[in-house]
Amino acid sequence: MIQEIAGGVCAPKGFRANGVHCGIRKNKIKKDLALIVADKKCATACVYTTNLVKGAPILVTQKNVADGFAQAVIVNSGNANTCNANGMEIAEEMCRLVEEHTGIPHSDVVVASTGVIGQKLSIDPIANGMGELVKGLGDNSTAAAEAIMTTDTVIKEVSFSFELDGKAVRIGAICKGVGMICPNMATMLMFITTDADISPAMLRKAILADVKDSLNMLSVDRDTSTNDTLCIMASGLAGNREIVASGKDFRCFCDALHRVTSTLCRMLAADGEGATKLIECRVSGAKSKKDARLAAKSVINSNLLKAALFGADANWGRVLCALGYSGAKIDVDKIAVAFKSRLGELPVCDSGRGIEFSEETAKKVLSENEIVIDVQLNDGRGTAVAWGCDLTYDYVKINGDYRT
Amino acid sequence: MIQEIAGGVCAPKGFRANGVHCGIRKNKIKKDLALIVADKKCATACVYTTNLVKGAPILVTQKNVADGFAQAVIVNSGNANTCNANGMEIAEEMCRLVEEHTGIPHSDVVVASTGVIGQKLSIDPIANGMGELVKGLGDNSTAAAEAIMTTDTVIKEVSFSFELDGKAVRIGAICKGVGMICPNMATMLMFITTDADISPAMLRKAILADVKDSLNMLSVDRDTSTNDTLCIMASGLAGNREIVASGKDFRCFCDALHRVTSTLCRMLAADGEGATKLIECRVSGAKSKKDARLAAKSVINSNLLKAALFGADANWGRVLCALGYSGAKIDVDKIAVAFKSRLGELPVCDSGRGIEFSEETAKKVLSENEIVIDVQLNDGRGTAVAWGCDLTYDYVKINGDYRT
Repeated sequence: MIQEIAGGVCAPKGFRANGVHCGIRKNKIKKDLALIVADKKCATACVYTTNLVKGAPILVTQKNVADGFAQAVIVNSGNANTCNANGMEIAEEMCRLVEEHTGIPHSDVVVASTGVIGQKLSIDPIANGMGELVKGLGDNSTAAAEAIMTTDTVIKEVSFSFELDGKAVRIGAICKGVGMICPNMATMLMFITTDADISPAMLRKAILADVKDSLNMLSVDRDTSTNDTLCIMASGLAGNREIVASGKDFRCFCDALHRVTSTLCRMLAADGEGATKLIECRVSGAKSKKDARLAAKSVINSNLLKAALFGADANWGRVLCALGYSGAKIDVDKIAVAFKSRLGELPVCDSGRGIEFSEETAKKVLSENEIVIDVQLNDGRGTAVAWGCDLTYDYVKINGDYRT
Repeated sequence: MIQEIAGGVCAPKGFRANGVHCGIRKNKIKKDLALIVADKKCATACVYTTNLVKGAPILVTQKNVADGFAQAVIVNSGNANTCNANGMEIAEEMCRLVEEHTGIPHSDVVVASTGVIGQKLSIDPIANGMGELVKGLGDNSTAAAEAIMTTDTVIKEVSFSFELDGKAVRIGAICKGVGMICPNMATMLMFITTDADISPAMLRKAILADVKDSLNMLSVDRDTSTNDTLCIMASGLAGNREIVASGKDFRCFCDALHRVTSTLCRMLAADGEGATKLIECRVSGAKSKKDARLAAKSVINSNLLKAALFGADANWGRVLCALGYSGAKIDVDKIAVAFKSRLGELPVCDSGRGIEFSEETAKKVLSENEIVIDVQLNDGRGTAVAWGCDLTYDYVKINGDYRT
């Protein structure tokens, strides 16, 4: 049984965190530097953006976690440290500062940055902020979650407990990301901690499998970021038998992990830039899992459908249109579509053709802030879920003037 | 030499056209039924959407032009005749009505529909409007162009003259399409006429090659429509030697054809739903033509960049981000980017890194209504041009409530 608990990345045994304002951002009430440290070296696995333009921090992190272990995570917001002249230098220096202030070797540090691309980043505010950041290390997951936010409007943090061979195990995470969100491997920044005892190889296997049905099924705007980093660290302090192979324990761990990532995906989509609605597309009856994923992702990526749902307009033709160009193998004449929300259910299409419906009911169902688009392809057993959000005036406003 | 002339689809010898309001739309001042007829059977080639969800008119047209010839085009706006129960019946009946009123065999008619997907279409208004439509056939390309508009705000019609072995040849076109525009083979509706004498096989070859650098490089919203149809008809009345193989005449014809399609692509992008700016991305120095196309298309498809340009914000990091996830093979460290418009030029990135620039100059350059994003990949000889538009409040407004 997986139970929600408090604590975020500090819920698992052996992790402390903090977040401060160090001055990368001009706004003094916005924290911009976060640190997570573990009491001991942790089995660690990371997944990064597939964008060919990669932030310098990703290159440094790849090197530092190549051995499957890490002990700290440092993250700044306000500047992506990408496509600038001194990116590698700054990322290396951030790791060195962690070593100087905590004693954790710089080669065991995960580093990440998020914000505007292509602007110089000075090490000075980070160096100046380290003292306060390290001094405040403790049960401060929320401060760390706040420090990694950019245009996010809510703090994104979860934690759960579950059991492995009779031992209580905890898993927690923080993340950020509301724009430039179209994961292709991983997206945005997400840091997961757990006190499960699990080998680096199995941790990597778990996270690579998980992203296919979590982060890779999330999209705010189809723009795959340059700095996406997902990192999971396992301290092993829960005392369970170490997971070194597939089996029941590994499945339990994967279930808990998916609970974390899928919960955060919903939070990320709901807080998509300018979003007023979380849109969840559930596809079933696809020829294959791959077809189901393609179909679900295509629907939540359609600008036309996203704008229609902002207007609570049951324009289901746009769902069929998006299914048709998704690349998934589908038999158009078998498609059934329904819109669902807490306020009701509205079947709109059966056998690829329209069903009469009440516009009044449609407006009611679609006026909710969580909309499910249920797509039955009736052509196999593949299923998938994708998350996105509506396209609104505020998305345009936020992104028409992001840098200033 | 290719010269612009008046006349649209009626500029070439042997074509008459008209457009009327027949009552598919409630708004009586909006024409909704168009007809183009040729004096004789024309070599005809069509390209259609690759969306698996295809409008019924496309299925009927495919059958009717399978022999490479057609003599008339009938089009309605206000209803896409797609994903409804009686689609095939209605599309067949529209062709039959053309035969009844003009004597042109129904099997030589191209039929197309555009508008809302999934709503019943009655044949009655079309049947009632045929008399007036056929009676008014003449030099009325503009009326036909008006009748195929949906949310288009300007009439899209061009015509040019050029020479083939000393004979004056004309080519003209009308088209529509401002939303659900992301051609994949063809997009939207475009009807081209010419009096060039050219075989069906060479006409098909010309149009299939052309769309790769014209309609397939155009995107308003990445939504590939269900009803896209591009149709070109050649009456052969110009009196040139029939083009039956590649060579100088074929190249001349292809040049004139590209002048038509690229001019219309720019008009389509500039009139994209809610658009305030035409965005043209010119990529050069790519490893291959394919890489150049992928890169250019990715840039004009980025919601983030589109919103930034609406706000005249020189956020070039989003250009690099889009290049990075485009799928094109690129060497990030070689990329140079500049924004250009009638008001100046602004280099923003060299060797994959930012160049200092004046925000004042940036605002000035980007305040124009035609922006060129010049991308030099410095890695080969592949070039491509793609057209798109900015993402604005009005796009959201138009699509939040399209059906009502």
